[in-house]
Amino acid sequence: MSAYDELRLELSEVSDVLSALNLLNWDARTQMPSGGVGSRGQQIATLSAIAQDRLASDRLLMLLDECETELEGLPEDSVERRSVTAVRQASAFYRRLSPSLTREFAALKTVAQEHWAQARAANNFALFAPDLERVVAFSRELAQAIGYVDHPYDALVGLYEPGMTAKRLERLFAELRQGLLPLLRRITDSGVTTRDDFLHLDYPVDSQRAFALEVAQAFGYDLTRGRLDASLHPFEISLTRDDVRITTRYNQNFLPQALFGLLHETGHALYEQGVEPALARGALTSDLMNLYAVAGVSFGAHESQSRLWENLIGRSQGFWAHWYERLQLHFPTQLEGVSVGAFHRAVNRVTPSLIRVEADEITYNLHIMLRTELELGLMDGSLLVRDLPEAWNAKMRDYLGITPPSDALGVLQDIHWSSGYIGSFPTYTLGNIMSCQFFEAACEQQPNLEQSLANGDYAPLREWLTQNIYRHGRRFTPDELLRRSTGRSLEVRPYLDYLERKFAALYSLERSSA
Amino acid sequence: MSAYDELRLELSEVSDVLSALNLLNWDARTQMPSGGVGSRGQQIATLSAIAQDRLASDRLLMLLDECETELEGLPEDSVERRSVTAVRQASAFYRRLSPSLTREFAALKTVAQEHWAQARAANNFALFAPDLERVVAFSRELAQAIGYVDHPYDALVGLYEPGMTAKRLERLFAELRQGLLPLLRRITDSGVTTRDDFLHLDYPVDSQRAFALEVAQAFGYDLTRGRLDASLHPFEISLTRDDVRITTRYNQNFLPQALFGLLHETGHALYEQGVEPALARGALTSDLMNLYAVAGVSFGAHESQSRLWENLIGRSQGFWAHWYERLQLHFPTQLEGVSVGAFHRAVNRVTPSLIRVEADEITYNLHIMLRTELELGLMDGSLLVRDLPEAWNAKMRDYLGITPPSDALGVLQDIHWSSGYIGSFPTYTLGNIMSCQFFEAACEQQPNLEQSLANGDYAPLREWLTQNIYRHGRRFTPDELLRRSTGRSLEVRPYLDYLERKFAALYSLERSSA
Repeated sequence: MSAYDELRLELSEVSDVLSALNLLNWDARTQMPSGGVGSRGQQIATLSAIAQDRLASDRLLMLLDECETELEGLPEDSVERRSVTAVRQASAFYRRLSPSLTREFAALKTVAQEHWAQARAANNFALFAPDLERVVAFSRELAQAIGYVDHPYDALVGLYEPGMTAKRLERLFAELRQGLLPLLRRITDSGVTTRDDFLHLDYPVDSQRAFALEVAQAFGYDLTRGRLDASLHPFEISLTRDDVRITTRYNQNFLPQALFGLLHETGHALYEQGVEPALARGALTSDLMNLYAVAGVSFGAHESQSRLWENLIGRSQGFWAHWYERLQLHFPTQLEGVSVGAFHRAVNRVTPSLIRVEADEITYNLHIMLRTELELGLMDGSLLVRDLPEAWNAKMRDYLGITPPSDALGVLQDIHWSSGYIGSFPTYTLGNIMSCQFFEAACEQQPNLEQSLANGDYAPLREWLTQNIYRHGRRFTPDELLRRSTGRSLEVRPYLDYLERKFAALYSLERSSA
Repeated sequence: MSAYDELRLELSEVSDVLSALNLLNWDARTQMPSGGVGSRGQQIATLSAIAQDRLASDRLLMLLDECETELEGLPEDSVERRSVTAVRQASAFYRRLSPSLTREFAALKTVAQEHWAQARAANNFALFAPDLERVVAFSRELAQAIGYVDHPYDALVGLYEPGMTAKRLERLFAELRQGLLPLLRRITDSGVTTRDDFLHLDYPVDSQRAFALEVAQAFGYDLTRGRLDASLHPFEISLTRDDVRITTRYNQNFLPQALFGLLHETGHALYEQGVEPALARGALTSDLMNLYAVAGVSFGAHESQSRLWENLIGRSQGFWAHWYERLQLHFPTQLEGVSVGAFHRAVNRVTPSLIRVEADEITYNLHIMLRTELELGLMDGSLLVRDLPEAWNAKMRDYLGITPPSDALGVLQDIHWSSGYIGSFPTYTLGNIMSCQFFEAACEQQPNLEQSLANGDYAPLREWLTQNIYRHGRRFTPDELLRRSTGRSLEVRPYLDYLERKFAALYSLERSSA
């Protein structure tokens, strides 16, 4: 057996452990009886430690050395060498991380989530502040263990978005902000009011599910390799490419929630279902740093696919021109007298609001910038946890012109910080940006693409995405993936073009002078 | 940290792995999309190997030596020393087993199950015979690895029923046979025909579920620490005492199937939910030999609880006197004009039949004896696989007076042999025997027990069982558990008394002269 074959064998077992971890997580959020919560945390901790120990082992380190010699003749970006690189990186990471740090961090997250929930319910930031201080301190230690040149945030954001740095983010977000803020002002100044009362009628859940699932399958979601459940927060999780599960959340009195939630998760699922079978159970279908069985190259690239299918397709005029009659069949009384144009406008209504997860396509990014800036401050010490609520509210006024009436509707709204995720927020907006860059390239390279989309035929788009993105798993970096498929590094312009084009039409705006 | 504390820590992690294995199995049988089947087998194999490697490790062996010295002063049957004993036995077992044997056996089982299903569908034993020969050969190697004095079967049955041997089984089953065969003859000679046509009407599944779950909860099944699903074959599985799941199978045109199936699994579930919290994640809530998270002392003792709640309670006259009106509320037209007596007789109808899982309380044991005798022959070489179908049919004629019209309805009916389980069948009948011995003791020790059961109050019975059986987990051997709670070793007499009493009344038999 070659060293590489041995490495593959070892990684296939680590990958099985990560799949089991994903199942433990899926089950906890969809099926588990309430009594199981305590022991589930222990099971997850144990399996995480098993995977981590194997990745940090001396034997693996030796194997990596042997593999590097053995594979010298292969191209640097071959599956084999990229697999070795991914394992090498994880090995170095876990050998630097002390097991006690990991264990303490895991324990802290459990407590912090509980205190965060209490703080939010009581609208009392002080109940969560001490934990958040510890999360910030631990995140600094984590950044030290990972290593960075300029800013501790580089190490953290790199966990979710390899190659991203604070400096690059600042540049990208500045350009985005320069486009978004004037566009938002033109929309709010347009005086156009969009009717959406009909979205809040009584929409029976069974029909919501049936319609959304029909669309998901039309997009290409394969139910023989997946399943749909309900959960409090929608998510996608894959055990392997052949078992990719999604959830959504139903609101009987608000149609868009379950529908767009499901289309969003379908985008994530198409990514996972589209990975090449030969990569299965390997280093390129596992996020070894985050101990997660996932084939997407980064959080941002993954999000680009959920946003693409949810927004660029699911909220487009062409989509509703094709599907609206079908939707009306499901809800004839609720949508009686509502034109397809009125419906399309309603599901694209722009309005500054308090809550990130309810925000429209434009203001969403402002919520993300706000969080990213605050995280940067927390990590470099220029912002103290105790000053966070005030800083939050000041930025809300700056960007969105509104002041949260309470911390529960402000700084306490997201679970991320209590879960130890500092550095993951920007990937949501990176996903938005990438989605347009990928989509623009797909349209350029396939002249009939827009016509097939108008006909409700999603196979050509899905195939382009599969060929260019999905099938490769984690073989390339996000930047490489963009360069290979679009010819360019990450750029904001296609996204701003898309927003300008779409919302200028929806709000009858004068074309921007820019 | 003491050596015992270290051992506990190690075992708590092994126990987490076994819980994850149970979840992988539960999910495969209730939730998994069909595409997941291949990778699920690999995940299960990997987690099994991880648990096995840890149990076979040199470090654990040293720890066991230290623990034995450290705990010398404690009683031999203390939780601590019994935990060490259980781990010592598993350590010895896995250190003797070669990993290649385990891996080959696992691979064989996968193939054998597939061939068995094909052979059954094609009614062609020859398609399965070569695999069965290999299963027999592997089982002999396994028996060698475990070790035995008299008969290789002792080693195998001991995996499922510690302390049981071929010799003891022969003695027990001979006594049982001597009681059962005359009783069966008196019933078939009685000329009584039992009406059960009304059990085959249209019984909507939702109402079946609602009624059965109401009874399960009345028995004490705690849904905050459990859940009910549908599956092809009903089963109970526990991750921990706080997450104990059951399934049943609905037949819209046969009422007893889902109902008694669910009461049966409820019995298993009460055992698991009743274990002492302090034992959780330890050696005494894990079947380390079978790599299964389970708190019951043996397959037989576990089965005694499913049979007790299903048959001794659920098929008793007193039970239906209490519940029948409630059942009629669910099914007013189907059960119109059917008296409680007629219903009770129908669900206890005795009739020799081909299929074990459909057999009544009396003939069921004859199906088990037949299988046990054939397994003994296969293991000691006195019966060859190629002669199995003929031997099966001859015994069916002997015991039940019927000849299977096909191997599909005969020797190919059960999945057990293709799954590598040789030695597990007798535990079903051992469970029947134990159930009556436990129940008799409970009634003797609690004079008002029968009155509370008649009132539909199951708490006193459940509490006796919890105190005497459930709470101890795997601390005692089956024999010790029987001696502690009933004052005697396993004995057949209470079971024969129960059957005589029950069926003499149901079939208006003359009292036996015996």
